[in-house]
Amino acid sequence: MIVVLRHGCSKAEVQHVEKHLKELGFEPHTLWGVERTVIAAIGDDRVTTKEHLESVPGVERVMPILAPYKLASRELIPRTSEMPLGGPGPEVKPVANLVKIGGKKIAVIAGPCSVEDRGMILETAAAVKAAGACALRAGAFKPRTSPYQFQGLAEEGLEYLAEAREQTGLPIVTEVLTPADVPLVAKYADCLQVGTRNMQNFLLLRACGEIDRPILLKRGMSATIDEYLLAAEYILSGGNKKVLLCERGIRTFEQYVRNTFALAAIPALQEKTHLPVLADPSHGTGVRRFVAPMAKASVACGADGLLIEVHPDPEKAKTDGQQTLDFKEFAKLMQDMKAIAAAVDRSI
Amino acid sequence: MIVVLRHGCSKAEVQHVEKHLKELGFEPHTLWGVERTVIAAIGDDRVTTKEHLESVPGVERVMPILAPYKLASRELIPRTSEMPLGGPGPEVKPVANLVKIGGKKIAVIAGPCSVEDRGMILETAAAVKAAGACALRAGAFKPRTSPYQFQGLAEEGLEYLAEAREQTGLPIVTEVLTPADVPLVAKYADCLQVGTRNMQNFLLLRACGEIDRPILLKRGMSATIDEYLLAAEYILSGGNKKVLLCERGIRTFEQYVRNTFALAAIPALQEKTHLPVLADPSHGTGVRRFVAPMAKASVACGADGLLIEVHPDPEKAKTDGQQTLDFKEFAKLMQDMKAIAAAVDRSI
Amino acid sequence: MIVVLRHGCSKAEVQHVEKHLKELGFEPHTLWGVERTVIAAIGDDRVTTKEHLESVPGVERVMPILAPYKLASRELIPRTSEMPLGGPGPEVKPVANLVKIGGKKIAVIAGPCSVEDRGMILETAAAVKAAGACALRAGAFKPRTSPYQFQGLAEEGLEYLAEAREQTGLPIVTEVLTPADVPLVAKYADCLQVGTRNMQNFLLLRACGEIDRPILLKRGMSATIDEYLLAAEYILSGGNKKVLLCERGIRTFEQYVRNTFALAAIPALQEKTHLPVLADPSHGTGVRRFVAPMAKASVACGADGLLIEVHPDPEKAKTDGQQTLDFKEFAKLMQDMKAIAAAVDRSI
Amino acid sequence: MIVVLRHGCSKAEVQHVEKHLKELGFEPHTLWGVERTVIAAIGDDRVTTKEHLESVPGVERVMPILAPYKLASRELIPRTSEMPLGGPGPEVKPVANLVKIGGKKIAVIAGPCSVEDRGMILETAAAVKAAGACALRAGAFKPRTSPYQFQGLAEEGLEYLAEAREQTGLPIVTEVLTPADVPLVAKYADCLQVGTRNMQNFLLLRACGEIDRPILLKRGMSATIDEYLLAAEYILSGGNKKVLLCERGIRTFEQYVRNTFALAAIPALQEKTHLPVLADPSHGTGVRRFVAPMAKASVACGADGLLIEVHPDPEKAKTDGQQTLDFKEFAKLMQDMKAIAAAVDRSI
Repeated sequence: MIVVLRHGCSKAEVQHVEKHLKELGFEPHTLWGVERTVIAAIGDDRVTTKEHLESVPGVERVMPILAPYKLASRELIPRTSEMPLGGPGPEVKPVANLVKIGGKKIAVIAGPCSVEDRGMILETAAAVKAAGACALRAGAFKPRTSPYQFQGLAEEGLEYLAEAREQTGLPIVTEVLTPADVPLVAKYADCLQVGTRNMQNFLLLRACGEIDRPILLKRGMSATIDEYLLAAEYILSGGNKKVLLCERGIRTFEQYVRNTFALAAIPALQEKTHLPVLADPSHGTGVRRFVAPMAKASVACGADGLLIEVHPDPEKAKTDGQQTLDFKEFAKLMQDMKAIAAAVDRSI
Repeated sequence: MIVVLRHGCSKAEVQHVEKHLKELGFEPHTLWGVERTVIAAIGDDRVTTKEHLESVPGVERVMPILAPYKLASRELIPRTSEMPLGGPGPEVKPVANLVKIGGKKIAVIAGPCSVEDRGMILETAAAVKAAGACALRAGAFKPRTSPYQFQGLAEEGLEYLAEAREQTGLPIVTEVLTPADVPLVAKYADCLQVGTRNMQNFLLLRACGEIDRPILLKRGMSATIDEYLLAAEYILSGGNKKVLLCERGIRTFEQYVRNTFALAAIPALQEKTHLPVLADPSHGTGVRRFVAPMAKASVACGADGLLIEVHPDPEKAKTDGQQTLDFKEFAKLMQDMKAIAAAVDRSI
Repeated sequence: MIVVLRHGCSKAEVQHVEKHLKELGFEPHTLWGVERTVIAAIGDDRVTTKEHLESVPGVERVMPILAPYKLASRELIPRTSEMPLGGPGPEVKPVANLVKIGGKKIAVIAGPCSVEDRGMILETAAAVKAAGACALRAGAFKPRTSPYQFQGLAEEGLEYLAEAREQTGLPIVTEVLTPADVPLVAKYADCLQVGTRNMQNFLLLRACGEIDRPILLKRGMSATIDEYLLAAEYILSGGNKKVLLCERGIRTFEQYVRNTFALAAIPALQEKTHLPVLADPSHGTGVRRFVAPMAKASVACGADGLLIEVHPDPEKAKTDGQQTLDFKEFAKLMQDMKAIAAAVDRSI
Repeated sequence: MIVVLRHGCSKAEVQHVEKHLKELGFEPHTLWGVERTVIAAIGDDRVTTKEHLESVPGVERVMPILAPYKLASRELIPRTSEMPLGGPGPEVKPVANLVKIGGKKIAVIAGPCSVEDRGMILETAAAVKAAGACALRAGAFKPRTSPYQFQGLAEEGLEYLAEAREQTGLPIVTEVLTPADVPLVAKYADCLQVGTRNMQNFLLLRACGEIDRPILLKRGMSATIDEYLLAAEYILSGGNKKVLLCERGIRTFEQYVRNTFALAAIPALQEKTHLPVLADPSHGTGVRRFVAPMAKASVACGADGLLIEVHPDPEKAKTDGQQTLDFKEFAKLMQDMKAIAAAVDRSI
């Protein structure tokens, strides 16, 4: 850590800070400049926090040198880790052709926002498979902004999803909202999604760290990169090494879209972590007309996968219809993305 | 709702939208302008969502007229509701002089970020009481950005808090992180806090709606006013009518503070809801030197209460020391705030 | 406009608002709902402002129906306007093969952030031409955050740029900072750039509206889409019909990049305006390593052109070296973008 | 500066960076850590930029130690500088009781957004003086978002302002939009305002640096503290030592207010600079009902002055009526603020 001392701080204050740093296990190197004294504290930045040291008298500012996460870091594993979409658990049956994310093939995960009934989910599963999707995603437990909105079919929805997997062979991705539901969802799903509102639901992250299923952890809508990778670190440090990341739009002053799709986060994350990074242009924009251009942009800038909302009749969708493609639009987009993928030396 | 149709949309599209609105229970009034056709849909905006209608062909934009929340609305109760800080449960003993929030007296709730050990919490309870605080706040379950940081003492911390109430008579405010812990925390606490990261943890909100304790619901760090009041609505619609709100800083491009303290949210919330509105200048700024000026500003602009972090030795605090006052600073601030409160015709 | 009246406003207040709207030339249609009265005011929204009407007693909120700009609107010209990069002025010599922006061919405009000396600009011009760029961009007048930084070569820089055009045939794009300099810059440049910090320098926009040269108007770093198109409207309404837009990153809470590159603004702008829309991945990210992926993403999502910073030796660049490509990186990127352009049925 | 090198960078790269730093005049101290090598570069941070050094191979990140501004810094003058509101120029007549800003007395500057005609400005000047304001503020040159809006009376407006000064003795504060107008505005005004959209109009700042009138420089709506103080530095480094700062709201995701009033910027600026810091609760919120509470909050947190919009009939105002007080509201607010000022040991 670099500890910048206040302008004009006394020698006693400097010594007090040095002592404090030594007690924390750092080796302090004090550099006396004309306008500022700076202490370079050699050691593991993660034993303390920037904020803690900034409460020590005489300290103006603390600048960490090292990233606060370890297991998620690309310094630990200097290439993208390939993650299988599925686990060896007793309940989830092995999928014949195991889907992997993080390699040359870009994974397209598609499906409706919510499981609304048996018919629509089976119909959608068949359609997205035919168009080339590698996994089915739909929500049985729905986090909704208002208590008066549709909250999902719960376990009934999970059963329909399992049936869709049975029929199509597509692995299932679905959201879990609370630690108590992790075992239930893991019984049905190949991959559990932790949504944007739960990115810092730390007890849920811990519960996800204890199972053997890949976790699709979406970026919080105002999360920094460090906060995001620390959330992944909660899962990884619990023992579950399979975490997928996903940029899904951040909250900014912009109002013509539901979120600002921060696509540069994709190369930025890929530089800092070995975890695969997906893009969700449906939530990333919140506007159906922008899903296709931003899906193509996601492929062009190197996303390892995409999440795309597809519904038999978006106008009738119970949730998120305004950002959902119909089957024809999705099939067309898949074709268009294949051409882009080829241009960046990947496939879909 | 006002439904704006696309430039040049056909008569058939207009009729389709009208039919759709009637099916939802609205009475559509179509106004044919030169550049745009607009349908004023009279009825309850809350039966559908803006987003749903925007997925109907021919629709450009939907503008709701009514607020999406009901029970939190100041139209329901046209004055600030006074909320007792404590409940009638079998475990929490009745506090002799029941503290109420939302009246002329401004409630100051103070204490350390975390319960670190028995001694420090008893010492702090005594000190904040002596300085005039009306309740003690400290965390036993801590949501921490990194898995490598101190995570709180859990039930042991709750026991120390109960002892502090025993000794001082101050009601206890403490955070709950997950639905499964609600009964445990409610056994010890007079008021449960739902933190900023859990503002949209909807299952936690539902669990809080089922108990008879006031809930201090902090604003999410990127929550709009509507999202915030809908989160309160989850608790209220579950049957628990005691919700306290608290502005605690939002995430913006500013970096010289941990958060941007959006104080105008206080009069803005008071205009829209009958729930009392507190201010947290400690988290709202994240910088100890700015806590006192912003606490005074909070009183001046009409906050119904304050949350202030106080610790016997902030430099040694395990969490949030950089934004925490020591006893002397807190006592001085209490004096200063009393003068401001008098100037706005209130008391502390 | 839709005028929403306050809950419980009196009949006299409603009549007062109706009268006020009639005086402004609107035809008011009052709709009496149970919870709110709403007046649909038919007429030209642009004769007044939302803010003005919100100051009328009894009014809660005003929602405009029409966009506040006219000449920039895609409703006026329902396709992308092709803009020549150059004008017929007496000083700027006609470029043999006139470059046009807004058609199937994607325009790549490249060059260093600043003209630093004669040699480097001639060298860069030759290199970007060889790689396939269609225009040269470099600054002679530099807006710099600090008064202690390099401020540009001024007219000397313009002369070197003219020489570069002479040698390569590439049209020149360069920034103008103040109304008084518009004639001078127009004497040398084929296209004048108005930078992000000047997007709402309205007198500069007016001065640009009076000349016959295309204006490359960059988006302000916290400008909404409406504000941006109104800035274009200043130029268009002055009589200059040649305006090019450019997304260059917005200011958000994100810190791992200099700006958040809001790529969805490209399809969003193309839907609202007939003006061509470019992308600037150099400023849009501020990080050299992210320029190539985001340039490719820009092509994939439909940008009509790109602005890319290129320098013979970025490490030695006087300005913006951290986001600048060298010749080899640029040549490689041009090749890669050609493949993407083909995949979206365009060319470079 | 602290230069953090990339993980695993070579010894040759370290030496290259050391050499580069020496050439820039720094004395490099290299610290070899286990995970990162860090170079502490002792010298004046302002000779280069963070961005420049980040383009040197092997460099991961650069962290400046010193603030990039000098003349604006509180390290130069360790107390708030008192600034007279008026200059010794030949045209502006000396005001009998010279108003000073930056001392114990809090300056309230009030008036309409625009000078609309002679009558209203004389009437408003008399009213704000009667209520206790110390200066009159109104715009003759108006920066307007749309070219179709009222653009101000220009010199005619300045003449009315001069007449208002004649009648009331109040010094005049008015906005200047472009360098060419600085002499004209300085002929009439005691203090020139540079508005939020022009905070980085560097040629305007330079022109303001060459006159002998105080400059009221408003914070840009997405300006960081460093950018803001560097804008002040442009004026100060030109020789004009009289600069007043003003927080006026920033752009964030919040939509219930026109801007987010970032009041903590007041103590934050006061800690970093000796220039007086004002608050503008009218623009800071954009909502009339919030002006009074936020004005009181501004006094409570230590603002050296306030800017408040006042108009004889806000409903009829040509600009900004929705955030403007009438005479009665302003007189009431002045009384209320006096009580708060007394509580923080100041006066109005």
